[in-house]
Amino acid sequence: MALKKLKCCGTEDGGARKNAAERVFETARDLFYHRGVRAVGVDEIVNQAGVTKPSLYRAFASKDDLVAACLEESAREVRGSLDALLADTVDDPRERLRAIMRFHAAKMTSPDYRGCAMSNTAVEFPEPGHPGRNVIESCKAETRERLGSLTRQLPVADPDALADGLVLILEGAMASHHIFGSQGPSAMLVRTADALVDAYIESARVS
Amino acid sequence: MALKKLKCCGTEDGGARKNAAERVFETARDLFYHRGVRAVGVDEIVNQAGVTKPSLYRAFASKDDLVAACLEESAREVRGSLDALLADTVDDPRERLRAIMRFHAAKMTSPDYRGCAMSNTAVEFPEPGHPGRNVIESCKAETRERLGSLTRQLPVADPDALADGLVLILEGAMASHHIFGSQGPSAMLVRTADALVDAYIESARVS
Repeated sequence: MALKKLKCCGTEDGGARKNAAERVFETARDLFYHRGVRAVGVDEIVNQAGVTKPSLYRAFASKDDLVAACLEESAREVRGSLDALLADTVDDPRERLRAIMRFHAAKMTSPDYRGCAMSNTAVEFPEPGHPGRNVIESCKAETRERLGSLTRQLPVADPDALADGLVLILEGAMASHHIFGSQGPSAMLVRTADALVDAYIESARVS
Repeated sequence: MALKKLKCCGTEDGGARKNAAERVFETARDLFYHRGVRAVGVDEIVNQAGVTKPSLYRAFASKDDLVAACLEESAREVRGSLDALLADTVDDPRERLRAIMRFHAAKMTSPDYRGCAMSNTAVEFPEPGHPGRNVIESCKAETRERLGSLTRQLPVADPDALADGLVLILEGAMASHHIFGSQGPSAMLVRTADALVDAYIESARVS
């Protein structure tokens, strides 16, 4: 959604407006992520982006639409990074699960990290009708399915339960980072996920 | 903080103002939990509570102060429920860990459930100076320590790592409920926690 909109704007009247839309988008994405969506108003976004309010509304019908566009971009980035990572990882489900967890764990050590943009926005917008919620729900369903597609290749009795357990550990690492920071329980992400996979494999082996 | 303030108000000019402060507090707590803290303004709280704005400010110096009071009450309630639950549970660390996870899992099946008030507010207010953050950080440190005090009684090599893994699973169940609801990965809370404890015990047994 974001890219399409930015392209449309660019086509309408060339470079200048495209740059304004891009500046709005990048500024909003940064502010929403670091301070929260509701904490940041449209006035602050246009002021910080150095554009006029009509420029924002030419590119995005509403703040909610801008929020959804930012989330789509986050989803696209994570999907691209994970696709590339898995393409570079040996074709082994266990190693690929580890690679996914290590990828997220590495992000959490960045001083800039403030949880998952999707999960944060889901907390701020409980209403089912918000345009961002569709993006969030598809992205998280994709994560769940990506983990499930790997656990289903493991010698375990209930791969979907294991995948859901891994979702809990991953979401928990993102959520607890808001409270304890990177040195808290989040630091146990990879180890905990690994231990859970072990438990499922061991349980299937002995039964 | 909440109760002390409500009592002070009651002492100042008797029942009427105490009731107004209580109504503000209960209304705010309910609105903050269901809709989010930033989504709810002081005007909406006083309108819904049927009191005047000065009544709110006589009881709470600011909205932030009211938020902190609501969080303190949530922390107090959870602490009280868990203390009572553990007093009624057989003195066995494994059973007590299960009881804690079952307690949270049961809460998650309520149609009224919208995650953890503490964790939600931590997402909305990243700034370290917010009066609510102290309450959140102490409450979560207490949860971590409560789990640690039980894992340290288990035959495991690294009880603190296990406790942190359980924090991740618990926080993940609360967080993923915002996206998938009660039938999503959150439904695996008790089973995942149990499997992780098994893994740690098994790993210490064979090593």
